[in-house]
Amino acid sequence: MLILVTYDVSTQTAEGRTRLRKVAKVCQNYGVRVQNSVFECIVDATQLLMMKKELDDMINKGTDSLRFYNLGNKYKSKVEHIGAKESIHVEEPLIF
Amino acid sequence: MLILVTYDVSTQTAEGRTRLRKVAKVCQNYGVRVQNSVFECIVDATQLLMMKKELDDMINKGTDSLRFYNLGNKYKSKVEHIGAKESIHVEEPLIF
Repeated sequence: MLILVTYDVSTQTAEGRTRLRKVAKVCQNYGVRVQNSVFECIVDATQLLMMKKELDDMINKGTDSLRFYNLGNKYKSKVEHIGAKESIHVEEPLIF
Repeated sequence: MLILVTYDVSTQTAEGRTRLRKVAKVCQNYGVRVQNSVFECIVDATQLLMMKKELDDMINKGTDSLRFYNLGNKYKSKVEHIGAKESIHVEEPLIF
């Protein structure tokens, strides 16, 4: 299934900037970056739980915001892109 | 239906920063900001076309990126939020 992950991490502090990099790294383990803080992740239910847990443990819930959107398995017709940086999509889950 | 709009607008130039404000303003006409460059818009098919046209005309396709994700009418179970700035949702389309 395609899970869209979007996040806002507060970069007011050095610690926040480190969190931002870590959040991006976790998302990169599970999917493809399509915009600065937007990742498209093709994952199964187990991988989704793992990803959520990692990110949940990582963010500062007082300042940071994480959103997950489940677009299901038939997602191709649900996604439209206009402009630069079209994303390339690998069908299988990106876990090695 | 719920349409998620995410965008990256290049802010290297003053013109780009103006575009960024304009893109956000258009999205605000159609929905709710949930993160810096992420809007949730409850719109019908006509409003979606209008919004897309306005945004398409506005961005610089060489540098900016717009993405639309269609989460359909039964979207409540497809959206999960962790952390700060939970979004409030008005059921009817936000057009006055």
